[in-house]
Parts: sequence; C-alpha cells; structure tokens
Amino acid sequence: MMEKGSDEYYMRMALAESARAAERDEVPVGAVVVAGGTIIARAHNLTETLNDPTAHAEMQAITAAASFLGGKYLTNCTLYVTVEPCVMCAGALAWSQVTALVYGSPDPKKGYTTTGAAILHPKTVVRSGVLARECSEMMKKFFRKKRK
Amino acid sequence: MMEKGSDEYYMRMALAESARAAERDEVPVGAVVVAGGTIIARAHNLTETLNDPTAHAEMQAITAAASFLGGKYLTNCTLYVTVEPCVMCAGALAWSQVTALVYGSPDPKKGYTTTGAAILHPKTVVRSGVLARECSEMMKKFFRKKRK
Repeated sequence: MMEKGSDEYYMRMALAESARAAERDEVPVGAVVVAGGTIIARAHNLTETLNDPTAHAEMQAITAAASFLGGKYLTNCTLYVTVEPCVMCAGALAWSQVTALVYGSPDPKKGYTTTGAAILHPKTVVRSGVLARECSEMMKKFFRKKRK
Repeated sequence: MMEKGSDEYYMRMALAESARAAERDEVPVGAVVVAGGTIIARAHNLTETLNDPTAHAEMQAITAAASFLGGKYLTNCTLYVTVEPCVMCAGALAWSQVTALVYGSPDPKKGYTTTGAAILHPKTVVRSGVLARECSEMMKKFFRKKRK
C-alpha cells in the first residue's frame, strides 16, 4: 500500500506538503513532481503568504521541476497533487507537457474537469482518487477551523 | 488615438514589452497592469530565459501587480496584453478577479476563448482587438524570422 514508488507513496509526500500549507494558514494543497522515482520538486500553496493568486502548489512545483531539469518540459515526470488542479494549473500542466498527473480528491467547484474542456496536453495520463479521503479531509478540516 | 489613458495608449506600453521579449528571442507577448491611470506592473514572456512554462507575460504581470498592491486581488485594475491569454493565464486572471482585461490580437490556437468555457471571473469586463494589427504583426514577424 505504501510501497516506495507507488502512487500512494508519493501522494503521502504531497499530503505532507499540504500540512505545511495548513501550518501557515494557507488552503492546504500540496504537490510533488517525480522523475525516475526521485522527487525533484515539492511545493505547497502560498497564495496568502506571497499575496499572489498564482502561487498554487502545482504552479510552484512546475516552476521548480522545470528549473531542476533545465528545460520547459516535464517529460517523463509525474505531478502529484492532493486536490484536483484548477484551470490555471491544468493550463500550466498542458504547457509543461507533463507525462502524468495524479490527484487525490476531486474539486467539484474549481477543478479543471468542471469546465468540460480538453485543457491538459492530449498525451498526459491522468489518475485520480489516490488517497482521496485523506486529501479531502485535509481540506475539510481547514475550512471547518476557518468557520469557527 | 494615442491619448494618455486610452486603451491604445496602454496597449502601446504592452507592445513595448513585447518588443523586449523579441529582443531576447522570446515569443513576443507583453503585458501591463493599470490602476487609477498608473501602470503598476510591466512584464513580457520569459519562458525560454527562465526555463519556465508558467512565465507568460500575464502571469508575471499579475504577480507583480498583486505584490505592488499587497493583496491577492486586482480590484480596480485593467490588464493589457498584446495577445489573447491562454487557459493558464485566463485562469490566473479569474483568481485575481481583475476588473478588466484588454487584449490585442486573438489567438485562434491557444486563446482561452477557444475552449468555449467560462474561465474568467464573471465580473471581469473584456475588450479585444485593441491595436490588433500591430500586436499580430509582432508575432508574425517573430515566427517568420524563426522559420528562416
């Protein structure tokens, strides 16, 4: 289940990033980028800390991974993110031509799939629902606390 | 026509930014953000220079403007960009809740309107076709040179 190299294993790493966001009172979304079994980028949402609406976990993970690889394309990379990407992040993933996208919980409000449009690169493989319950619980816990 | 404060005036500033991109051999797209008649951010595409697929002119202009304003929202701001934004940039503009988007030439391949989805914030006003010929010619000239 938590075998190294499995989707669950890397999603746990993304969840750890989302916990770092929660600690900063940021909407708890975390992401990692994996290439050849190695995590080459880790990021969490920083929109409040940076006063930047573009500072989603995925955007920073893409920027960091591309910088690490020294090129614009995330060829042979998988991006793991705890929550379904929004349109902005899906559009960025399309430009990156990422090989695979794996996300945890769906986002029925802001997720890119709600548009019905083909936003990702046609070759990008998508797997969803990985540790969905934990990823969703991280968000729910955050918003429950906010509402108190 | 080139009256200060007109759409054409600010689009000329965005065109000047696109020329800076061309000088660096970047796809020549430029953007400025205007608030209360003042340009608070200027940016041009830097995807090649930064090895970053997210480094579009609009993304950087949004980040810079939000930083200048000290908040995530581009309330009472207009973003001028020489070419129709892609899905990523339109998604970012949605998060920013920018008051108005003004673009020059359409992008029939990668423009956000090609998706048919309602990506921008519902309150964002859009004006297009401002100095469209100049904006389009900047792109055509670049790609003609590339193909030589």
